[in-house]
Amino acid sequence: MKIAIDAMGGDHAPKEIVLGAMKAAAEFNDIQITLVGNETKIKEYLTNQERIEILHTDEVILPTDEPARAIRRKKNASMVLAAQLVSDGKADACISAGNTGALMAAGLFVVGRIEGIERPALSPTLPTLDGEGFILLDVGANVDAKPEHLLQYAIMGSIYAEKVRGIPNPRVGLLNIGTEEKKGNELTKHAFALLQNANVNFVGNVEARDLLDGVADVVVTDGFTGNMVLKSIEGTALSVFKMLKSALTSSFKSKMAAAVLKPDLVQLKAKMDYSEYGGAGLFGLKAPVIKAHGSSDANAIYNAVRQTRNMVMHNVSQTIKEVVEKETTQVK
Amino acid sequence: MKIAIDAMGGDHAPKEIVLGAMKAAAEFNDIQITLVGNETKIKEYLTNQERIEILHTDEVILPTDEPARAIRRKKNASMVLAAQLVSDGKADACISAGNTGALMAAGLFVVGRIEGIERPALSPTLPTLDGEGFILLDVGANVDAKPEHLLQYAIMGSIYAEKVRGIPNPRVGLLNIGTEEKKGNELTKHAFALLQNANVNFVGNVEARDLLDGVADVVVTDGFTGNMVLKSIEGTALSVFKMLKSALTSSFKSKMAAAVLKPDLVQLKAKMDYSEYGGAGLFGLKAPVIKAHGSSDANAIYNAVRQTRNMVMHNVSQTIKEVVEKETTQVK
Repeated sequence: MKIAIDAMGGDHAPKEIVLGAMKAAAEFNDIQITLVGNETKIKEYLTNQERIEILHTDEVILPTDEPARAIRRKKNASMVLAAQLVSDGKADACISAGNTGALMAAGLFVVGRIEGIERPALSPTLPTLDGEGFILLDVGANVDAKPEHLLQYAIMGSIYAEKVRGIPNPRVGLLNIGTEEKKGNELTKHAFALLQNANVNFVGNVEARDLLDGVADVVVTDGFTGNMVLKSIEGTALSVFKMLKSALTSSFKSKMAAAVLKPDLVQLKAKMDYSEYGGAGLFGLKAPVIKAHGSSDANAIYNAVRQTRNMVMHNVSQTIKEVVEKETTQVK
Repeated sequence: MKIAIDAMGGDHAPKEIVLGAMKAAAEFNDIQITLVGNETKIKEYLTNQERIEILHTDEVILPTDEPARAIRRKKNASMVLAAQLVSDGKADACISAGNTGALMAAGLFVVGRIEGIERPALSPTLPTLDGEGFILLDVGANVDAKPEHLLQYAIMGSIYAEKVRGIPNPRVGLLNIGTEEKKGNELTKHAFALLQNANVNFVGNVEARDLLDGVADVVVTDGFTGNMVLKSIEGTALSVFKMLKSALTSSFKSKMAAAVLKPDLVQLKAKMDYSEYGGAGLFGLKAPVIKAHGSSDANAIYNAVRQTRNMVMHNVSQTIKEVVEKETTQVK
C-alpha cells in the first residue's frame, strides 16, 4: 500500500511530518510512504529511508492562500502533487496537515468525488469522556447543506465507524437544539425524516452539550454548525486548560501541589487530544484524503498514517461507493 | 420599580427563587418583588416579606410541557401570570428559571414584541478569560434567522452592552467559520454586508474558538448556531471539570494535593459560571423578560434581579424601540 504525505503542510513541517512518517514506516511494514516536498529540507530529518521515498518540489501552499485559486495556480505544490499521486494511481491515499480549504479543493478537484456522493464531508473524530470518541461530520467542507447530504454523511460515517473504528452497528445522532423529534430548523426537521427511514442505526437528535458524554458514535450536521461546534469544543477546552495552568502556578504552594498532580493532569490533557484518533477524513472521495491537524507533531502524523492505512485496508471508499449506489437505487 | 418573579420555575424552585428574591429585595430598596406561585410553599422559605408580595396560583408549567400549547392552556401558570403582570402594567419586568421555550412564548404572546423588531432574541452573557464576558445572541428563540434579524440582534446587543454592562462603543462580531469577509454560509455573507453599513461598532467575523478570549462584546448569530455554540461551551467546560475532578481524586496523593489547590480551583470554576452575569434576556420585547438558568441557586436569582433592575433603570426596551424605529426610517 502506498501513502503520499505532504511534507510541507502544517505548523511543524517538515520536521514533525518526516519524524511521524518514519515512525509509521518502521511500525507498518506493509506501507510505502512518499514524502512530497523540498528534498533538502526533508533530508535534514530523514534518518531512515526504509519504505520512504521523496518526491521533490519547491512549491508550497500557504495557510493564507485562497484554497480554490491555490489549487489551480500552484500545480506543483507539495499538497497538490500528493493528491495527484492518488489520482494517477501511484498512491492509495494522501495526508496533509496544511491549509484545510486547499486540501478539500485538492480532494474534490484532483482526487475526485465518488459518483453519487453530492458533497464530501470533513470528518474528524473527537474525544469523549469514556475514551471511545465520536465522528462529527461535516465540519466545514459544505456550509449550506441539504437534508440529503446529511443522510449521506450518516452512511459514510457509519461505514467508517464500523470498518475503521471497529464499532458494530454504530449509533448515528442528528445534531440538534433539542432531543425531541420536532425540534430544530428546516434542515434538521427534514433530515430527521430521512434518517428515520435510512439503513443506519439512527438514535435521533443529540444535543451539543452531550457530545463529549458519548451519546452517539456518528454525529451528522451541516458544515457550518459542525465547524462551530468543533471550534467551540476546542476553544473551551483550551481556555479551561489555560485557566487551570494559571491557577496552578498562582503561588508557591499551588506550584508544589501541581507538581504532585502533574501525571494526572498530563493524562487529562491527553484524553482531550483528538490527534490520537488520527486526522479528519474527507469522506466521499475516490480514495482516502486525510487532513491532519495544523499543529500536528510526529505522533499525530503517525496516527494519521495508521488511520489512513486502516481506511485503505478496509476499502472504506469502495464500500461507501457501493452502499450509496444501493441506497440511491432503492430510492428510485 | 416592580419585578415579577415566577417562583415555581427551575430545578430548585421555590426555595432558591425565594431566597434569591429576599436577597435582592434586601439589597435594592427601590424594587418591589411579586413572587408568583404556590403561597404555602413560598412561605416555607420567605422569612422576610419586606418589599415582597405573593401572587398565589397552583398552576405550573413543567419542563416537559410543549411551550406554545402550555402558554395557551395554562393561563394561570406562575410563569404566565408573571408575564401577565408585565402586560397589565403591574410589573416593569419579569424573571423565570422555568421552561425556556414557554418563557419565550409567554414573552412573545403575553408581553409582546416591540414594533419593528421582527424576532426577539434570547441573549445570555457568557464568561471570558479576562472576566469581562460577552453577549451571545440569538441562542435559540429563532432558529431560521434572516440577515435582517442578525442586524437587529447587533443593535439590541449593543444597547444592552452599553447601557447595562457599561461597555462604551461595544464591539460587535458576526459568528462565522473564519474571520475573512467572504467566509461562511448564505446567511452570514448577507449579514456581513448589512452589519458593515449599520450604526454599530462592527469588528467583522469572529470564530467560535476565540469567543472565550473576548474577541467581541456582542456576538450575533442565528438561534440554531447560537444554541449549538452555547451548549458546546457549557458541555465542554462541564466535561473538563468532570475529568479534572476524577483526576484529582484518583489517589490519596492527588487528593492531598487537590486539597491544597481547592481555593484556586473553586475560583476557576466561578470564572466559568455565567450566572454571575445574570440570566439570558429576551431582547426585543416591550419590557424586560429574563430567563434565569434552570439550575439557578439563590445567588443566580439575585444576579438576575440585579440585571433586570438595570435593564428597567436604563430603559433598555424603550431605547431599543427608538433606535430600531430610527434605523428603519433611515433604510426607507
